[in-house]
Amino acid sequence: MKNKLKRELLEKKAWTDRKTVVFLSDFGTSDGAVSAMHGVANQVSNTLYLDDLTHDIPQFNIWEASYRLAQALPYWSQGTVFVCVVDPGVGSDRKSIVALTESGHLIVTPDNGTLTHIADRVGLLEVRTMNVDDNRLAGSQKSHTFFGRDVYAYNGARLAAGEAQFETIGDPITKIVKLRIERARLEGRSLVGSVDILDARYGSLWTNISSDFLEELGVDYGDELEVTITKDGRIVYGYHLPLCKCFTDVQKGEQLIYVNSLLNLAVAVNQGSFAATYGIGTGEGWKITFSVLS
Amino acid sequence: MKNKLKRELLEKKAWTDRKTVVFLSDFGTSDGAVSAMHGVANQVSNTLYLDDLTHDIPQFNIWEASYRLAQALPYWSQGTVFVCVVDPGVGSDRKSIVALTESGHLIVTPDNGTLTHIADRVGLLEVRTMNVDDNRLAGSQKSHTFFGRDVYAYNGARLAAGEAQFETIGDPITKIVKLRIERARLEGRSLVGSVDILDARYGSLWTNISSDFLEELGVDYGDELEVTITKDGRIVYGYHLPLCKCFTDVQKGEQLIYVNSLLNLAVAVNQGSFAATYGIGTGEGWKITFSVLS
Amino acid sequence: MKNKLKRELLEKKAWTDRKTVVFLSDFGTSDGAVSAMHGVANQVSNTLYLDDLTHDIPQFNIWEASYRLAQALPYWSQGTVFVCVVDPGVGSDRKSIVALTESGHLIVTPDNGTLTHIADRVGLLEVRTMNVDDNRLAGSQKSHTFFGRDVYAYNGARLAAGEAQFETIGDPITKIVKLRIERARLEGRSLVGSVDILDARYGSLWTNISSDFLEELGVDYGDELEVTITKDGRIVYGYHLPLCKCFTDVQKGEQLIYVNSLLNLAVAVNQGSFAATYGIGTGEGWKITFSVLS
Repeated sequence: MKNKLKRELLEKKAWTDRKTVVFLSDFGTSDGAVSAMHGVANQVSNTLYLDDLTHDIPQFNIWEASYRLAQALPYWSQGTVFVCVVDPGVGSDRKSIVALTESGHLIVTPDNGTLTHIADRVGLLEVRTMNVDDNRLAGSQKSHTFFGRDVYAYNGARLAAGEAQFETIGDPITKIVKLRIERARLEGRSLVGSVDILDARYGSLWTNISSDFLEELGVDYGDELEVTITKDGRIVYGYHLPLCKCFTDVQKGEQLIYVNSLLNLAVAVNQGSFAATYGIGTGEGWKITFSVLS
Repeated sequence: MKNKLKRELLEKKAWTDRKTVVFLSDFGTSDGAVSAMHGVANQVSNTLYLDDLTHDIPQFNIWEASYRLAQALPYWSQGTVFVCVVDPGVGSDRKSIVALTESGHLIVTPDNGTLTHIADRVGLLEVRTMNVDDNRLAGSQKSHTFFGRDVYAYNGARLAAGEAQFETIGDPITKIVKLRIERARLEGRSLVGSVDILDARYGSLWTNISSDFLEELGVDYGDELEVTITKDGRIVYGYHLPLCKCFTDVQKGEQLIYVNSLLNLAVAVNQGSFAATYGIGTGEGWKITFSVLS
Repeated sequence: MKNKLKRELLEKKAWTDRKTVVFLSDFGTSDGAVSAMHGVANQVSNTLYLDDLTHDIPQFNIWEASYRLAQALPYWSQGTVFVCVVDPGVGSDRKSIVALTESGHLIVTPDNGTLTHIADRVGLLEVRTMNVDDNRLAGSQKSHTFFGRDVYAYNGARLAAGEAQFETIGDPITKIVKLRIERARLEGRSLVGSVDILDARYGSLWTNISSDFLEELGVDYGDELEVTITKDGRIVYGYHLPLCKCFTDVQKGEQLIYVNSLLNLAVAVNQGSFAATYGIGTGEGWKITFSVLS
């Protein structure tokens, strides 16, 4: 079944039809590093469309890179090639890999956990290691510290341009590095999950709990739920909040539950920052519960 | 007359010739939101050229979005489609609209004041509401909070790709939301106007007073004018400054009047920040006067 | 010899084949200035591929612009046109120039030192002044302060689109403005050079000393060298550090010497900021020495 899907994707030549490469890193954009990656890709072929997911991932934060990738990738067309470089282990013996997702995207990245959320939410059809000695920018052999440019941008562009093939770029592997995620679940009359990330500008909490659970709970817009947030088991926040269709259903400065653009439950202050106001963080150890009022 | 211009623009198919979409928002670029908008547009057609005006509009600041749009739009070719999303009322009942400007550009935006400066300076030929239930990204019906991606990016791309037509996207409307602007004017021997905005990096004050007024006043480069700045009627700044062709006409740290890149009067400190030095702000309530010395 | 190379480059029509324009400035991206430059270029021809090196050069810092240009330019294809606008003397009588590099790139820029590092490392085949009265955006004659848009973006795009020719855009000149650089050199058993720049995100020191010198010194990975950093002759830092293949050769928080992505010597703290920890700066006056231990 997966093999059939894989064969179809490879036969469709989705990448060379699309010719699109999207970059993600923790490099920032204030020096020439991102531009050098774009330059290498443009040099492979100037028919490629190059774009960026973000380069403002906090330094070495693989978890946020993994999350941001899963957030944006589904909105790009099948065949888009992603080059993801948050790589604290650059120059070490961590593998360089290319993943084919069940959604038909390719991701070129170091094997360090960047694929965690994609594997969980989208699914991976096959992952291959890249032989980086044979597959790198000409003349870059002496540089051990800018794989993003010399290996990942270069090979991402070659895949998109049809100059390299997924099936011959390296050997398939069955095990990749993954970060630990607490799964969203229904427990009695409560929804339990993790605080995935803060909506960067607005300070809302985005959870990993799908809004599909709301129907199972029999909850509707306008209803109130008890929201509890704990960090390593200690209660940090507890309050009754309404489930709203939009921020303007409550007054400026008031709190609400809403369904975010990923169709997951989220918590916000209208025109304010929930995270800053209540001191909430994200990632491992943070747990959020939405319970039906008894 | 306006109808003739409109007909010509629509017959020329300026948008599908140009295939260019430019995005403006207050999302920042540190998460995946802008990339999701680009992805949706690229998915509509990978022949589109996508670019950005800025995504660093201060959160919910419709006035600055309106100003920045009017600043950059005239430098883009006729037929460019702008997608402008500063939308504090997302999910409320504010309309979603598409505007056709007298300059032949299209703007897709919520109806919340974003078109204020464009209507004032460029002119609008026609504005239509969008039926957002029929015109949105497939599968996005459950999401009420990311219209930028699901409605505005999607429809901007479809207009640019020729998959949607301005004339059938919704009904024409005659009244849109506008912010209050104090008009630039000649009063006796003085030019009066508002402080439109700060030149972000340099802290210069940009006014809405056209340099064309200088001829009416009989003022030439090298002449001095009395500059008075008030906030809600209270004097904040008063000084004689020279009208200069360029910053280097005065010493480093000295103040000057100059004609900015929009051909309006502006006030600056050479290699310094006028706004920070003298505590000047922008928008409603700020008034600036240039008077001929008696 | 240089003339032959120049003729070949001009006959190959490298620019019109490539149709790529890359922008560099100190404008930031929070207002509409960069977008106006892109708009003008897109207006010249919508077949151009537009990209950015960075717009976060510190205000008026010509030295950093010069350095960033030399860092990224070699990774872009022959024929790419660069538009570089860090221009504290805008509106003064500084020249506007176009440079043809030995690598086959074009650079459109004010003549104020932006070409210093490129001239040193890549080499210039010919530099021509631009007659800015004849070669500027239609209708921009009254604006003296946004040459980046009206002259540099406009002419960069015309060169890339084949609407202007390098050989007729203005007269050749033999002398351009250059900043002072201390050359990297071998002195006895020591390598001497300057601290070129800080790797923006990570705070590593990037020197101008090529790793080729390591062989001459007989130094190998794993060896220790004495690192001395002085500012205007005064010792700021002195320590023995290992030459490492990658950051993970040392523990988190430990210091190392490595070969950076430009194949020059660099000094870093693994997952920390060397510059911030030891108070090191860059540019004129800063000198770094790597000595073989006796």
